[in-house]
Amino acid sequence: MDLLKEINKYKKIIEKKLEEVLPKEDCMQGKLCEAMRYSIFAGGKRIRPILNLKTYELISGEGYEKALPLAAGIEMIHTYSLIHDDLPAMDNDDYRRGKLTNHKIYGEAMAILAGDALLNLSYETMVSSILEDTRNSLLYAKAVKEIGSASGIYGMIGGQSVDMMSSNNITDKEKLNFIHNNKTTALIEASIVSGGMLANGTEEEIYALRQYGKAIGLCFQIRDDILDKIGDKNKIGKKVGSDESNNKLTYITLYGIEKSIEKTKELYNKAIDSLKVFKGKNTLFLENLADYLVYREN
Amino acid sequence: MDLLKEINKYKKIIEKKLEEVLPKEDCMQGKLCEAMRYSIFAGGKRIRPILNLKTYELISGEGYEKALPLAAGIEMIHTYSLIHDDLPAMDNDDYRRGKLTNHKIYGEAMAILAGDALLNLSYETMVSSILEDTRNSLLYAKAVKEIGSASGIYGMIGGQSVDMMSSNNITDKEKLNFIHNNKTTALIEASIVSGGMLANGTEEEIYALRQYGKAIGLCFQIRDDILDKIGDKNKIGKKVGSDESNNKLTYITLYGIEKSIEKTKELYNKAIDSLKVFKGKNTLFLENLADYLVYREN
Repeated sequence: MDLLKEINKYKKIIEKKLEEVLPKEDCMQGKLCEAMRYSIFAGGKRIRPILNLKTYELISGEGYEKALPLAAGIEMIHTYSLIHDDLPAMDNDDYRRGKLTNHKIYGEAMAILAGDALLNLSYETMVSSILEDTRNSLLYAKAVKEIGSASGIYGMIGGQSVDMMSSNNITDKEKLNFIHNNKTTALIEASIVSGGMLANGTEEEIYALRQYGKAIGLCFQIRDDILDKIGDKNKIGKKVGSDESNNKLTYITLYGIEKSIEKTKELYNKAIDSLKVFKGKNTLFLENLADYLVYREN
Repeated sequence: MDLLKEINKYKKIIEKKLEEVLPKEDCMQGKLCEAMRYSIFAGGKRIRPILNLKTYELISGEGYEKALPLAAGIEMIHTYSLIHDDLPAMDNDDYRRGKLTNHKIYGEAMAILAGDALLNLSYETMVSSILEDTRNSLLYAKAVKEIGSASGIYGMIGGQSVDMMSSNNITDKEKLNFIHNNKTTALIEASIVSGGMLANGTEEEIYALRQYGKAIGLCFQIRDDILDKIGDKNKIGKKVGSDESNNKLTYITLYGIEKSIEKTKELYNKAIDSLKVFKGKNTLFLENLADYLVYREN
């Protein structure tokens, strides 16, 4: 299996769906629509929505179509979080994926609104699917709930807020753990689990997907930290070493580069292990993706 | 009927529900939970969620209980929009309802996150109700969809973005119309209509509620503009005349104070007219509320 070819194929499917859902550029709301589109189509890897579609296929034995509203919703949530994270009041980043960040082009006010609008549109899209496919309403609702709680205070936003706290009563290890589990892993895990939920997976299957999601989510984050330290600026599209110069708490600053690489391999094994439940089903994509996350260079 | 007593009774009901849904102050996410609670419990009038509960009661003939998750969700959306609107990059307001705005207390980054978290929690709360009351899942989903689209680019956020545009190709009258219909009226209308939808109202009933909502929504906004011009600072909790000094496009700047007052009375008549459909049902609260909106002083 050619993993990158497969990723590319699914990227196109997701981008077509996003094109369908996003407002056109020349809408009455002017720059707002343009700003939303700018960040959505700024070249993301689409890892989260791809995982959603692939997991749905794995568990249902059907094509990915029914999961598309969830996949689009997940990518909109991911994108809004990046727009807001980049704001001057937050991480104050000028570039993302080699392009100017949203507020550098559209101004802070519009970037705040574009983020808000994407978060809202994500739920509009996902809730619509509950109504459109009434035979599967409850499965959709269950999946949307999973995505919603992974995105909120007990997930992504909570992780981001703890990341920003300068002083608190917890140790660095506890803090890093909390940030990793919530800021990045929670939404990756929910992307995977919600695909399985929509496909009406058994409890055992959902549990296995959750373990796989936790492992590759953390692996993804640690690899990000590694790339920030030893990556190629041209490949990752932003400066390297910015975590260090910002005094950011990362796996690398806490455990060093060698132990961090070791940890990603350990997580890879965990991810592969958790897929054993699906004996007889085609888990090749999920296996190869775990492998890719350990060694990716951007 | 003592309207203010009734409003107060329902305010307490809604605040109890919000207390149940919001995270506690001493949560792991630290200041984030505190910031969310600060703005939610900063003394809002709760007009939108009250209308939601009251409309549900009117159409269903039952108590308000089932509508509570929607009412709480609507108030969280309203509050997040205020937090973000007040930010330095947007309206840059230091006070709201006589209290310091969210970012003045918690800083910009936390105010952005607190807004995001409230918007997300709103959907988490509303989507949960779809799953919890499975006999009424589709009615809940329909209501959430109505609230969602009123809050997004084709509603509140769209209105806010047009309000911020300094130059565009539309006339001032068209622009003001668009802003009023979307920035304020859309969510008020949806609060009313979604209550009727959850109660499984007929098409005729939903249509009547929509007309009532459009009329009192616009009336509410024009009265706001009037109070900014001739209101009592101590009653409204912020400076008067700020629209004028900010060169804000309002009903007053466009039509003058006298015509604006006339317009609110005209809208009152429209609102009352649209309630005729409910002959035999108790629409006293909705009638009195329309009256209150025309003459309110804060």
